[in-house]
Amino acid sequence: MHSIRNTRLLRALKDQPNDRTPIWIMRQAGRYLPEYREVRAKAGDFLTLAGTPELACEVTLQPIRRYPLDAAIIFSDILTVPDAMGLGLYFAEGEGPKFKNPSRTPADIESLGTPDPETELRYVMDALRLTRSELNDSVPLIGFAGSPWTVATYMIEGGGSKEYVHTKKLMYGDDNALHSLLNKVTITTIEYLKAQVAAGAQALMVFDTWGGILTPRAYKEFSLQYMQQIVSSLKQSYPDTPITLFTKNGGMWLPEIARTGCDGVGVDWTTDLRDARALTSNKVTLQGNLDPGVLYGSKPKIREEVSRVLESYGTGDRHIFNLGHGIHQHIDPDNVEYMIETVHELSPAFHTNSPNK
Amino acid sequence: MHSIRNTRLLRALKDQPNDRTPIWIMRQAGRYLPEYREVRAKAGDFLTLAGTPELACEVTLQPIRRYPLDAAIIFSDILTVPDAMGLGLYFAEGEGPKFKNPSRTPADIESLGTPDPETELRYVMDALRLTRSELNDSVPLIGFAGSPWTVATYMIEGGGSKEYVHTKKLMYGDDNALHSLLNKVTITTIEYLKAQVAAGAQALMVFDTWGGILTPRAYKEFSLQYMQQIVSSLKQSYPDTPITLFTKNGGMWLPEIARTGCDGVGVDWTTDLRDARALTSNKVTLQGNLDPGVLYGSKPKIREEVSRVLESYGTGDRHIFNLGHGIHQHIDPDNVEYMIETVHELSPAFHTNSPNK
Repeated sequence: MHSIRNTRLLRALKDQPNDRTPIWIMRQAGRYLPEYREVRAKAGDFLTLAGTPELACEVTLQPIRRYPLDAAIIFSDILTVPDAMGLGLYFAEGEGPKFKNPSRTPADIESLGTPDPETELRYVMDALRLTRSELNDSVPLIGFAGSPWTVATYMIEGGGSKEYVHTKKLMYGDDNALHSLLNKVTITTIEYLKAQVAAGAQALMVFDTWGGILTPRAYKEFSLQYMQQIVSSLKQSYPDTPITLFTKNGGMWLPEIARTGCDGVGVDWTTDLRDARALTSNKVTLQGNLDPGVLYGSKPKIREEVSRVLESYGTGDRHIFNLGHGIHQHIDPDNVEYMIETVHELSPAFHTNSPNK
Repeated sequence: MHSIRNTRLLRALKDQPNDRTPIWIMRQAGRYLPEYREVRAKAGDFLTLAGTPELACEVTLQPIRRYPLDAAIIFSDILTVPDAMGLGLYFAEGEGPKFKNPSRTPADIESLGTPDPETELRYVMDALRLTRSELNDSVPLIGFAGSPWTVATYMIEGGGSKEYVHTKKLMYGDDNALHSLLNKVTITTIEYLKAQVAAGAQALMVFDTWGGILTPRAYKEFSLQYMQQIVSSLKQSYPDTPITLFTKNGGMWLPEIARTGCDGVGVDWTTDLRDARALTSNKVTLQGNLDPGVLYGSKPKIREEVSRVLESYGTGDRHIFNLGHGIHQHIDPDNVEYMIETVHELSPAFHTNSPNK
């Protein structure tokens, strides 16, 4: 890791002293940036953008050029995996992602393949290799995937959902079929994440956006169990590559998440970091958790809320500053800059064992 | 209360012994019932149905006729309050509720009135009086309102929302204006709920559907504080009418909710009732919390999950069986009947101090 010049993110994930709190932003390569909108308009649609390594690399680098961030995250989507499994991802105008061929029946699930990431997902690997080269060891590059549960909900519903009718029908009507689907997605995701590390990803994240719609018992059975398998497999192959798990609305399950052997745990803004730290016995690195809505506020309000997040974590080196969820599209980029500057200014006080002090 | 023949709900809320666990179903008067769909079709639209006391009474009674439930809940909507405040509620086909005049600016908020419930909301009061008379003291009648925070999000956004952009802009940009709005909604809601009790409601519920999108600190400041005011005012005027508060995704805030002086706390399915009981120090009655999706399952699966909910609460008389959220529209009414029968059959074992044993 010491070939990277900015090691703050990796130091935080490895429980090593830091001079200040590292910061990156979920969805930092995104529509709030005018330079992103320009490339997106040229590409024509989201899938062309994500599917063309040069363009994906370009938008990955944009926030790194604009802001003093401590990590890049590859521009991609959690639904590339089911797309590669044959579901046919497309974006209906103003409706979000959809699948031409949802996986709803045991026969649908039976017929699913487990794609080879260097073939069907080659464009992601090429984007990682190119970005890694372009970053030139300035900051670490994060790779990611969706959690098998979250990805499966889209595969079963055929897109986003409010009540998860088909998913719940399968869960309470044919849980064997659901487990069979989750197994296939897990196998694919493990190979996908391993390939990402081989292609240059220096840290990994698993986004479990919809684990929070489950009962505590179902969360363990249908979501956490499979994330646990991902962590175990990746740790066997790449023990030095840190993995962060993030279950949105999973505040109450932080103790179980921390016990998977992951290095970092993402925390949304509905849980105080003070509580999250206590719930995880200070044994993992916590990432988060500013309410993305704070960035609509004035600079004094942003400063107040940034300070509140830093204080809620308190003194220590296992905190990565981030939003509690992805940045909204209508945020003023100047406010993002101010948030980052404020973290740079205020966070050194929370790192008392820093080697630079 | 002893004029009511079925006192189980009120006994549970007042910590008195029960022979079995009472049960009612959130959104029990709803689209999953063919007889509801028939009346709804005749009415033409939702607002005519909710706004015509005879029709609202009829659909309130339908589930009581069909099932051995322990309570009726008046058929209405949490958005009747802002509609009466002048926002102009309407339903766009397939898009959910909308307001013609959202309250987004300080001037919008300044101009809002606080309507008199016996005038602008007279149709709700008439529906309550008629339903109370038709129920003829068979089961208690529940009245309800939305929490000021939840209602305010619809007023500010002009309808449902995903990211609550305008609400968060107000929260982090002009919190005085937001508090001014919440104050007006709270004053109106208090008068509305008092009028509901005067018109015949024998228990009250406050639905805080969107409190769970807040940080812990903002939840206390913008949602809980106003629910607390509602509880205090209602308890002053009607100390014997039990009040239940329900914040969806509020599992982590159960201790604070229980300290408002409310009698009951609704729990969604993401929190185990065992934990909820510990978090509330066994000092309030808990309502919930079957995942509504369970009703898509087979009868053995429904039985297994009903049993799991009863066991997670354990022995004691302060449990009201319910779903963790409203029933879905595509549920088979026979499965609902089976769930109710199962609660009747299995729950007596959890009531060891029953006077009937």
